[in-house]
Amino acid sequence: MNNNLELLREYMRSKGVEAVIIPGTDPHQSEYVSDYWKFRDWVSGFTGSNGTAVVTLKNASLWTDSRYFLQAAIELEGSGFELQNVEYRGELEVIMRWLSEQLHEDDTLAVDGRLFTIMEANRLEMICGENGFYFATDFFPADNIWEGRPEAPKNEAFVHDVEYAGEDVESKLTRTMEKVEENGADSILITALDEIAWLLNLRSSDVDFTPVAIAYFYMSDKDRVIFTDDILNKEVRNHLEKYDVRMKGYDEIEKFLNKRNVNNTIMLDPHKVSDTLGQTLECDKVYGTSPVDALKAIKNEVQIEGFRKAMERDGAALVRLFMWIEQNAASGTIDEIDVWTQGMVERGKSELYRGDSFEMICGYREHGAIVHYSATPESASTLQGEGLLLVDSGAQYLDGTTDITRTITLGNPTAQEKHDFTLVLKGHLALSNAKFPVGTTGVQLDAFARMPLWQEAMTYGHGTGHGMGHFLGCHEGPHSIRTSLNPVALVPGMVTSNEPGLYKTGEYGIRTENILLVVEGAKTEEFGDFLEFETLTLFPYDTRLIDTTMLTPEEIKQVNDYHAMVLERLTPYLNEEEVAWLSSKCNLLNA
Amino acid sequence: MNNNLELLREYMRSKGVEAVIIPGTDPHQSEYVSDYWKFRDWVSGFTGSNGTAVVTLKNASLWTDSRYFLQAAIELEGSGFELQNVEYRGELEVIMRWLSEQLHEDDTLAVDGRLFTIMEANRLEMICGENGFYFATDFFPADNIWEGRPEAPKNEAFVHDVEYAGEDVESKLTRTMEKVEENGADSILITALDEIAWLLNLRSSDVDFTPVAIAYFYMSDKDRVIFTDDILNKEVRNHLEKYDVRMKGYDEIEKFLNKRNVNNTIMLDPHKVSDTLGQTLECDKVYGTSPVDALKAIKNEVQIEGFRKAMERDGAALVRLFMWIEQNAASGTIDEIDVWTQGMVERGKSELYRGDSFEMICGYREHGAIVHYSATPESASTLQGEGLLLVDSGAQYLDGTTDITRTITLGNPTAQEKHDFTLVLKGHLALSNAKFPVGTTGVQLDAFARMPLWQEAMTYGHGTGHGMGHFLGCHEGPHSIRTSLNPVALVPGMVTSNEPGLYKTGEYGIRTENILLVVEGAKTEEFGDFLEFETLTLFPYDTRLIDTTMLTPEEIKQVNDYHAMVLERLTPYLNEEEVAWLSSKCNLLNA
Repeated sequence: MNNNLELLREYMRSKGVEAVIIPGTDPHQSEYVSDYWKFRDWVSGFTGSNGTAVVTLKNASLWTDSRYFLQAAIELEGSGFELQNVEYRGELEVIMRWLSEQLHEDDTLAVDGRLFTIMEANRLEMICGENGFYFATDFFPADNIWEGRPEAPKNEAFVHDVEYAGEDVESKLTRTMEKVEENGADSILITALDEIAWLLNLRSSDVDFTPVAIAYFYMSDKDRVIFTDDILNKEVRNHLEKYDVRMKGYDEIEKFLNKRNVNNTIMLDPHKVSDTLGQTLECDKVYGTSPVDALKAIKNEVQIEGFRKAMERDGAALVRLFMWIEQNAASGTIDEIDVWTQGMVERGKSELYRGDSFEMICGYREHGAIVHYSATPESASTLQGEGLLLVDSGAQYLDGTTDITRTITLGNPTAQEKHDFTLVLKGHLALSNAKFPVGTTGVQLDAFARMPLWQEAMTYGHGTGHGMGHFLGCHEGPHSIRTSLNPVALVPGMVTSNEPGLYKTGEYGIRTENILLVVEGAKTEEFGDFLEFETLTLFPYDTRLIDTTMLTPEEIKQVNDYHAMVLERLTPYLNEEEVAWLSSKCNLLNA
Repeated sequence: MNNNLELLREYMRSKGVEAVIIPGTDPHQSEYVSDYWKFRDWVSGFTGSNGTAVVTLKNASLWTDSRYFLQAAIELEGSGFELQNVEYRGELEVIMRWLSEQLHEDDTLAVDGRLFTIMEANRLEMICGENGFYFATDFFPADNIWEGRPEAPKNEAFVHDVEYAGEDVESKLTRTMEKVEENGADSILITALDEIAWLLNLRSSDVDFTPVAIAYFYMSDKDRVIFTDDILNKEVRNHLEKYDVRMKGYDEIEKFLNKRNVNNTIMLDPHKVSDTLGQTLECDKVYGTSPVDALKAIKNEVQIEGFRKAMERDGAALVRLFMWIEQNAASGTIDEIDVWTQGMVERGKSELYRGDSFEMICGYREHGAIVHYSATPESASTLQGEGLLLVDSGAQYLDGTTDITRTITLGNPTAQEKHDFTLVLKGHLALSNAKFPVGTTGVQLDAFARMPLWQEAMTYGHGTGHGMGHFLGCHEGPHSIRTSLNPVALVPGMVTSNEPGLYKTGEYGIRTENILLVVEGAKTEEFGDFLEFETLTLFPYDTRLIDTTMLTPEEIKQVNDYHAMVLERLTPYLNEEEVAWLSSKCNLLNA
């Protein structure tokens, strides 16, 4: 039996609680969570990045998305948790439907309010009300029953030099306060870790893959306070003091917000700020999308130039990685995990490298068809001298973040593989080549990456493009290129991925991903101003997989021009053998 | 001086009103309005289809969109109204900004609540509140000061036979009530004239271009009532009685709704129902998009087959019209208005024809660049043997509605004209050729029609596609193909226009428009089901304007296949000379 689950139920009974929802997130809605907040893992045994556990006095269930079904089935074995076999991406309504069949009128559903946003808690409260359940957000089992809970991370923070960041902290704080005031508020509480990191030009290593410090930040026209338990050395303290930022402990936030309850109108993003902090505040509140989100998304000239340089070093590291794969695949001596390790080794040799930006997806053959496949020692396939290999990887550099997917053949591609690869490439090229008027949103462009597949009754189940931070999270908003109706227009300085794919279950997966920068295009008197994309990512497409008879002359030229640029810009970073290899990969396509 | 304006001000003073907003619509938010509701025209002299007048005790202004600027400037001469020179498409905020500079605190803004939807009145009330103005919706100057007001139309209604409508009234009412109940209501008030016409298989001629009766319709699970002053002959009465629909006078609606105030939850579309009727109802209300909108948009097999036949007769009439244009243009004896007249003559010879579906836009040379150009005796250009002519026209037939735009050359097209025409055609072909998964919305497809223009830093300022009624309004929702984020997915049975254009001020306008039907496409196990378009409209593109070097082999084949279908399907309707002419227009393009 699962003792942790029984401990939780005992605690629930002692508090008069009939049900609890335990998400896999932290008080900052982080994509990657520190061990301190992995209470769901502790209770259920499930370790995937997306998943929510629900416990009643009699039953226990776990929801996750299909990429984790296999892993969850194994990890939940004997845990007392039942895996709910439906695709789950955080829809609380799905859980509440299940709960409404488990609970009775006047039962209490309780949650840790720090792990739910204001919006989420409101939705839960509403649904509970409709069902006649009580709803409480002051239930903190992790703090009370978790023996051996890991320490909260307290790493050494460091300054992200303005040489890389391109904008002074004072300027960022001033621009943010202008937006706060435009929203009718005179102060703001920021809880998203990447927003705080960007605002204060501050980084740390509290979370995997994203170089942020665990912190809160409060700012009014009179006061600026960071709340963090990270180690702040002399340089960091001087940096923060220079901008009049006071430093307090992480746990002091609640007391501080309580004291603020006078003469203050505070701006909160209800999709980001936790219900607990929201409830602490008794002053006037203005709810709105955090202004930092939009400011951060538009990269300045220094960041853009940094991205270009980071992509060159990243591309050079990839040349060495893919050469190594080619040299070793046929001998049957390396597996999917070795590719990941070797990727870190090669990137690790690059200047300004500060770790990977996410867990590499290295999917050989049928593993490539599992969209978010993560190789484990048990699952890892050994590469052979044939079949498709999908590698989706990225890195953090002080001057930029990278995220690239290439699909290559390890030898003798089939006509079907070439056909499918070329369809995906056509979509990828069409999006890269788009020109569009100012005001255009991602949803207007998304289908260009899909239409070649749609024409043959195929598609892919993920978005086409996500924003990306600068030495920050490899996924960020507020824009996107997806089928959903996101109203945020693309503007110069935004970056987005361009990653159509095709996944044939049990056979192979194909994805081709570059990072694009939105840049100004033609300006006209009669039709207004236009925008277009500059491709930042630098690495060749596998031309052995291209069926040139399926490409138009314009598409062939687009590939050739791109490969010429890749070769020219990576060559300075490569030795003679590497240049020769890359030249052979950048061979001209003929019509 | 404008006496009508002074009469209005006198009446305002007598009622203690400082400002009034007078829209150009009717209590049904109709696109075309009967003379009875043209109070705005009576006060201001402006007769355009889009325009809102605002009168204060000192000032008077009129807002319209750019297509009417010239006409408004002439018509408002000496009227006391100032033309506001900004693009206006019904944004009440624009008017309220102006009013907020004219009015003082505690002033009263009053409107005729019958002419504003519940949503509009709510917005006005909110803005007035923010500005400290009183807001009243019970101000009815048209009923009190308009001497010689035309009679409200009371024409003879007629049954739209199920032979054409394809669905019995009982079935339509039942399906609607199911949706009403799904929305948690037990009754519904319908005020949109085309919805009532569709629901009851009833038509009339109270409004230009759209064959509807002026009416309201109320339905619960126990009662069905139409309120209309139209003449209901024996056949119509029998028809309505067969479906237990009671008949009352148009003006009885308010008293009727008042009586209903018990044990009733009524569904209202707040974007359609007038504020006056909304306020009359004191029972529980459920606000939601009218379910009839969505039901009506999906055409049944009989309607679809009717559309196909109507398009054949319409195409044949267009063959005769365009032959006539070609035969007469060079001699300088016909003008833009003659083309319109001749169009009605030719279509009038067709079976089942019941009038045009909108006012023909016939724009020669620079007039073509005025998107909604309407020729007047003063403005009409005489055609010559050269230059571009844009003709956008459509008709009502008992078995379907049509709407088509063709741009032709009257001789010796320039390379620039051919280039521009071909760009527009490429976008039009790309959209026609789209295949897409179930769930796709119009905004995801819109840019396919624009991208060839965007690539050369050009675009057009109107939507790409609108829905169309069946022997009803030539514009209808709820779907669209536009840049705006309309969440309604395309589903089989919907029709939409496909009409990209390019407008070069002072030179020429180009638009190419067909009506498309959404049909089922491939069904797959792994990627779900797909949809595609069937082109309903039948008339050749002007091949003299096509620069084939700009087309791909696939696009050339698409044009040739379309022309082959046009020739095959129109031939049975044409005499020998006409077939010869059409054959020459459907000549094969070579790569």
